[in-house]
Amino acid sequence: MRPSSSPSDALFAALTARGPVAEQVDGRAWLRAMLDVEAALARATAAAGLIPDSAARTLAQACADEAAYDLTELGHEAGLGGNPVIPLVRAIERRAGADGAHVHHGATSQDVLDTALVLVARRALAALLDDLHATVAVAARLAAEHRDTVVAGRTLLQHAAPTTFGLKAAGWGAGLHGAADRAAAIRLPVQLGGAAGTLSAYSGRGREVVRLLAAELQLEVPTLPWHALRLPIADLAGGLGTTAGIVGKVALDVILLAQTEVGEVMEGGHGRGGSSAMPHKRNPVAAIQARAAARRAPGLVATLFACMDHEHERAAGAWHAEWLPLVDLLSSTGTAVAWLRESLESLVVDPLRMRRNLDAVGADLVAEPLAEELRPALGRERAHELLAAATARARAERRSLGDVLLDDEEVARVLPRDRLDVLLATGHRTGEAGELVDAALAALTSPGGIG
Amino acid sequence: MRPSSSPSDALFAALTARGPVAEQVDGRAWLRAMLDVEAALARATAAAGLIPDSAARTLAQACADEAAYDLTELGHEAGLGGNPVIPLVRAIERRAGADGAHVHHGATSQDVLDTALVLVARRALAALLDDLHATVAVAARLAAEHRDTVVAGRTLLQHAAPTTFGLKAAGWGAGLHGAADRAAAIRLPVQLGGAAGTLSAYSGRGREVVRLLAAELQLEVPTLPWHALRLPIADLAGGLGTTAGIVGKVALDVILLAQTEVGEVMEGGHGRGGSSAMPHKRNPVAAIQARAAARRAPGLVATLFACMDHEHERAAGAWHAEWLPLVDLLSSTGTAVAWLRESLESLVVDPLRMRRNLDAVGADLVAEPLAEELRPALGRERAHELLAAATARARAERRSLGDVLLDDEEVARVLPRDRLDVLLATGHRTGEAGELVDAALAALTSPGGIG
Amino acid sequence: MRPSSSPSDALFAALTARGPVAEQVDGRAWLRAMLDVEAALARATAAAGLIPDSAARTLAQACADEAAYDLTELGHEAGLGGNPVIPLVRAIERRAGADGAHVHHGATSQDVLDTALVLVARRALAALLDDLHATVAVAARLAAEHRDTVVAGRTLLQHAAPTTFGLKAAGWGAGLHGAADRAAAIRLPVQLGGAAGTLSAYSGRGREVVRLLAAELQLEVPTLPWHALRLPIADLAGGLGTTAGIVGKVALDVILLAQTEVGEVMEGGHGRGGSSAMPHKRNPVAAIQARAAARRAPGLVATLFACMDHEHERAAGAWHAEWLPLVDLLSSTGTAVAWLRESLESLVVDPLRMRRNLDAVGADLVAEPLAEELRPALGRERAHELLAAATARARAERRSLGDVLLDDEEVARVLPRDRLDVLLATGHRTGEAGELVDAALAALTSPGGIG
Amino acid sequence: MRPSSSPSDALFAALTARGPVAEQVDGRAWLRAMLDVEAALARATAAAGLIPDSAARTLAQACADEAAYDLTELGHEAGLGGNPVIPLVRAIERRAGADGAHVHHGATSQDVLDTALVLVARRALAALLDDLHATVAVAARLAAEHRDTVVAGRTLLQHAAPTTFGLKAAGWGAGLHGAADRAAAIRLPVQLGGAAGTLSAYSGRGREVVRLLAAELQLEVPTLPWHALRLPIADLAGGLGTTAGIVGKVALDVILLAQTEVGEVMEGGHGRGGSSAMPHKRNPVAAIQARAAARRAPGLVATLFACMDHEHERAAGAWHAEWLPLVDLLSSTGTAVAWLRESLESLVVDPLRMRRNLDAVGADLVAEPLAEELRPALGRERAHELLAAATARARAERRSLGDVLLDDEEVARVLPRDRLDVLLATGHRTGEAGELVDAALAALTSPGGIG
Repeated sequence: MRPSSSPSDALFAALTARGPVAEQVDGRAWLRAMLDVEAALARATAAAGLIPDSAARTLAQACADEAAYDLTELGHEAGLGGNPVIPLVRAIERRAGADGAHVHHGATSQDVLDTALVLVARRALAALLDDLHATVAVAARLAAEHRDTVVAGRTLLQHAAPTTFGLKAAGWGAGLHGAADRAAAIRLPVQLGGAAGTLSAYSGRGREVVRLLAAELQLEVPTLPWHALRLPIADLAGGLGTTAGIVGKVALDVILLAQTEVGEVMEGGHGRGGSSAMPHKRNPVAAIQARAAARRAPGLVATLFACMDHEHERAAGAWHAEWLPLVDLLSSTGTAVAWLRESLESLVVDPLRMRRNLDAVGADLVAEPLAEELRPALGRERAHELLAAATARARAERRSLGDVLLDDEEVARVLPRDRLDVLLATGHRTGEAGELVDAALAALTSPGGIG
Repeated sequence: MRPSSSPSDALFAALTARGPVAEQVDGRAWLRAMLDVEAALARATAAAGLIPDSAARTLAQACADEAAYDLTELGHEAGLGGNPVIPLVRAIERRAGADGAHVHHGATSQDVLDTALVLVARRALAALLDDLHATVAVAARLAAEHRDTVVAGRTLLQHAAPTTFGLKAAGWGAGLHGAADRAAAIRLPVQLGGAAGTLSAYSGRGREVVRLLAAELQLEVPTLPWHALRLPIADLAGGLGTTAGIVGKVALDVILLAQTEVGEVMEGGHGRGGSSAMPHKRNPVAAIQARAAARRAPGLVATLFACMDHEHERAAGAWHAEWLPLVDLLSSTGTAVAWLRESLESLVVDPLRMRRNLDAVGADLVAEPLAEELRPALGRERAHELLAAATARARAERRSLGDVLLDDEEVARVLPRDRLDVLLATGHRTGEAGELVDAALAALTSPGGIG
Repeated sequence: MRPSSSPSDALFAALTARGPVAEQVDGRAWLRAMLDVEAALARATAAAGLIPDSAARTLAQACADEAAYDLTELGHEAGLGGNPVIPLVRAIERRAGADGAHVHHGATSQDVLDTALVLVARRALAALLDDLHATVAVAARLAAEHRDTVVAGRTLLQHAAPTTFGLKAAGWGAGLHGAADRAAAIRLPVQLGGAAGTLSAYSGRGREVVRLLAAELQLEVPTLPWHALRLPIADLAGGLGTTAGIVGKVALDVILLAQTEVGEVMEGGHGRGGSSAMPHKRNPVAAIQARAAARRAPGLVATLFACMDHEHERAAGAWHAEWLPLVDLLSSTGTAVAWLRESLESLVVDPLRMRRNLDAVGADLVAEPLAEELRPALGRERAHELLAAATARARAERRSLGDVLLDDEEVARVLPRDRLDVLLATGHRTGEAGELVDAALAALTSPGGIG
Repeated sequence: MRPSSSPSDALFAALTARGPVAEQVDGRAWLRAMLDVEAALARATAAAGLIPDSAARTLAQACADEAAYDLTELGHEAGLGGNPVIPLVRAIERRAGADGAHVHHGATSQDVLDTALVLVARRALAALLDDLHATVAVAARLAAEHRDTVVAGRTLLQHAAPTTFGLKAAGWGAGLHGAADRAAAIRLPVQLGGAAGTLSAYSGRGREVVRLLAAELQLEVPTLPWHALRLPIADLAGGLGTTAGIVGKVALDVILLAQTEVGEVMEGGHGRGGSSAMPHKRNPVAAIQARAAARRAPGLVATLFACMDHEHERAAGAWHAEWLPLVDLLSSTGTAVAWLRESLESLVVDPLRMRRNLDAVGADLVAEPLAEELRPALGRERAHELLAAATARARAERRSLGDVLLDDEEVARVLPRDRLDVLLATGHRTGEAGELVDAALAALTSPGGIG
């Protein structure tokens, strides 16, 4: 059986496995992590006096040379025992000569694969967080630069009251920052339990070995072995799903702002965004790919949560089912962040167009402050009715709302003319958008996100 | 259009909406929460000097009498504007007379519905955590009582090295405790932003109103309004998915231990577990329902993560899509915990059967320590081969593994007879199971779970 | 334990449980279906000579009066045995007096609940299909009316080559029609197997009873009992997921076309679409709710597929886990269709705005035919480069693309001036859009959809 | 950016990308399919008189030599335009010299990628169906061989009435056969629409080109282009999800039957199923991997359904999000089938153990026929009570149920002693299991499945 090269290998990888996370979850990265675990286990068992120090040194050396192990061969043999640890242990043993018998002391395959998975996750998360923080920084720069750039607020994809592009970008930054906080808080414990999770092969020094192993690998010490209690997997699923979800939101905002009819932002990357049929097009390719990658996450998250039902001391399938979805989730989320970073870094913002889009809708936007002003005198319902009717009339007669209201007798009765003038002249009321941007920028330099 | 009574109303509710969470997420609970938000908003805007104190008092009073509001009527009108806040605000206004115009000051529907959702979630989580902690306590009791009750360790649903039922139960407790920790850590912020999230209607005192509102409702103060940044929803999805996942694992263990051929535990509830066709059956009904409820969670979690892509300042569908899945996720998880608690509280453990099941497999279980003993002399591969062959021969000849090994010349060469006798006589080696139980029991009284 | 009233009961039902499907899946509908199954089973077993004809008549009568059964009480008792069939059978027995002993002859609870589920699904699907076909008819009307209404084609949310609104609407109709075809093709078999699926209580006439029961209920006869082989559930999941998916696509198109900056369609429903804060807004409420409902489907579909792993002859949880997701999926999909129908029925199309949006982008759209024309002479790459540069220059200099090209020497060399004039004057080339509309309209009157 | 080698490449592929499907969905397979589409398009456009016949021949030749294209380079360039078609078209053009300008005539990237996806799916489905039919054949053989082998029926994982292993295997076969039918019925249409789906570049002969292209590739002709109407994707998702679901059920049954305490089946594969720590273990590795692969499907299915919301004429992300999940779903389902086939082909069935497991539970199993016999005289409720009490007493006193009942006065009153003797002596009543097996075996040779 030849190992399949999945399509991500070549044709699609630049799109679907982008950024620094991809290489932290590939076959080499897993091999590296498994070797690191076996080396650390050798040192830990030696430190606990269970195997000779010299054996630990030999084994650590045998594990150091990743290139000496043949991924394809290991993979082939994995097909026989059900996981790649069995052949790897044999291979280390062969390389370690007389000391080989001390490899994998007291451990079971799942101990090594689970701890390797945690190492892979930690390295992938580190790469992801670098990219994520860089993306937060771009969002923060946009927020600062456009603190007072007025833009239409859009609710249900309709113009609502105005806001600022700075507040929009600050929200992006705060959301991404909050996601980074959550991803950074994921607890990554070592897994070691032996055949049935009782540490039975360590002559009573098993808990000590666990602590030593955790110290070697700089991982957490769990209260109990978690081979069948998958909280660490759930934590990864939740943290990555959250990150992908926020990336998807930001990417969608970019895509919507870049629409031909809106045109308020554009991706400025060189040589990208063309079309095979339409040379005039300028597609927000990076945001689109970010969104595509983000949309692959929730299904993978569901698979990981659904596979938490590990039977007894080792699952008959649920464990094996975790590997690919977890790798894909790390990779998809990493890809989403990488593309979003490219998108935001290249983003060309058009404040003039923002203003023009607002003006095209015009005085309609004074409707909200007007409603508040009219409410005490007319009651909520009548105030709404009056303004809805005036808005409809303004549309029908192609006049501004202000014009129509200046003619309205009911309005005249309850609102002094000079007050109405002030309201109509107010321009774009963006409330505390500026202060909110300031607060967000301050928060982005400390942990916590948007709450 | 008459409101549909969903099947959970009556026929299925005792199965699928069980325990104390269900009534924290029903229509009345939502109404209560929305009224609480409007009352708190009135007080907060009054405290900020934006509306008269007397108006706040009248409004709070108008919000206090939940029974005065007609759920069916509100629901019907919700069909027109797209959410139930619009008609509720009108209803409060009518009840508050002249002060009615001050209701909902500066807020938009989503502010009220999101904050109400957070209140609903907090109350539901409180009920869930009570049940969860009670379930942890039962698991802890089982762990303590059976600290040294030997039971087969089972990996891939095959007998592996032995463990103790105490360690099994400690694992259940630790897993549930870890889930409770995560659920308890979910941050629940207030949402207030006004029409487009800029707090534009508060004359510059919006951030103060947000703080006051949060204080009134004992919720967190977010850095920014999160109307379109759904980290709080993601946190709930992740935390609840984790809880359901662990419950599903424990329930499955119970179901598997209760199998006719295993028979190591039985649910002891009275009047339950019968069959319409088979009077002799004793089904672990509570664990089965717990598992069923838990299996509904991952799909709902995926929906919530997939709906994080809220457009601009309010989503055109993704927001509205959250309500039912979140309610169902709270309800399903609550139901799963409630059933699991019933299952564990009624659990009858049969240590004798555990021992008999172990003995039926017999000396096979010494294979693991034997392998370790033979490895230095024979090498890993040969030691495995030898034992696998001896095991097969023992099966074929219906002899014990010990018998076969005592006859083996290769074993005789490398292992002194007296050492072999010791190994074969060792009985069930459960390693540090007891100490792990002790450690887990200590940890269950403090936050942290299994790592 | 009081049955919970889920939030859909009142506050949210008009939004989330809309249209004719909701009442086909509520508690009453399930009770009706279970009674229908028991009555049909009585008639079938009588026809097979297994129970007296008179008993069948009495039982059928006892099952006819749905109002005589107390949903709440049945629901409460369902909590004891694990499903509502057990107490229902007892209740029928009590009502049938001496003939009561013949009720439920040879059946197990799952037989009745599964067959009832199929009946519920059939009735819900019938209601759904009515609504779906009506929605197809509206789409077809829009396609016919706007067969030649030119509108911007939009790829990646950027203007591409033009198309017609008729073709857009024809696509909506074809998609919905294809979904209806798939939903209508779902096979709905009766389930009857007895305690372990062997029909053991029917004295060798079990397969005859199955056929008679299927005939009574107008359901299909399965090859084998499917109590643990959930193809019918998978078929429902797939068919409903497909329908919701297409509805979501159409609803999203409507929402995007209704954006303030696009404004090409508007929902015209009366009294709907207002905002609690912004009286001037006109939200496409129905399309938004359709989309929200559609987005709840994929997670439910995943739950149903994930729960196909029924153990042996009856699942320990996976069966019980199906009920709510299936009901919710029927209800969500029905709600999505109902809202989409309302949206399309009220849709106000603005051909003038469509034309204006096209013109705003202007001669850019001739880029595609120009590229084709230039390609043979310049090669694909150079043709693209040239047009991309010309487009950029036109934007920068605020000139039309035509202007820029008329000045271009390279173009002049390979494209005769009169040919260029023709191309620039062509206006909006919509290819075979009209003929495709005609073909689709023809196909919409026959089964098959878009392939 | 170097293309990542995903972990499936080597370490895990023998486990997670097994069987003949994997190589039908890898990078080479996609390249082959895209080249096939471009070649067929050249022939179709030539046949329609739109490009010279000689150009079509040159282009077909340029597309024939798959090895001439560099996957890694194409993949790298795909990162710029957003999909791999753009650089592939350029590469073909370069190879075709003067005729190169006629490549990709009138098509857009999505036309080629969607049609290639359909080709990839068809080839993968063909491989999958071969494996699936072979698996059905094994199940049929097991059903025939064990038509009358009695085994415990198990409901809720408790012994229920007996059934036969033949009927169990027939159910497996029927379920797999039904899934194969559904997979085989998936309609696979060609996609061709040009820039905006109007076939605008074909001078009115576009629909003819579509028909010719479909004929070239032996795909269906759709009513309309489906670039944004994803019914074909939904059909694949549903059909594959169904297949994976049934495979998961069968694999789980095998795993449960192979449990140490049950021991009714064993996988007999050579050199497989060992443990790194426990040489005596014999794990059902193939069934476990089948189940693991099957559990990855539902989340992928959900992603595909959730991504049906393609905006307007081409989706801004939802399209790109389909590629990997679809490939993974094909691969996972193929892997699940391949492993299940290996499991069933190697299955060692132990009828003696089946009988022994039944006997261990003993006369309890006559409870069902006894209940039916007692019901007319005692009423359902009393009959159940009596038997439940007798069962409990038998357990407590370690007597058989028969013994207890022979002493019971109430039974004596309503059931003649000789009738009771007959019932107790009946042995294992398996109803119409044999006839159902016969019917299923007949059906397995024709399309239809279990209904």
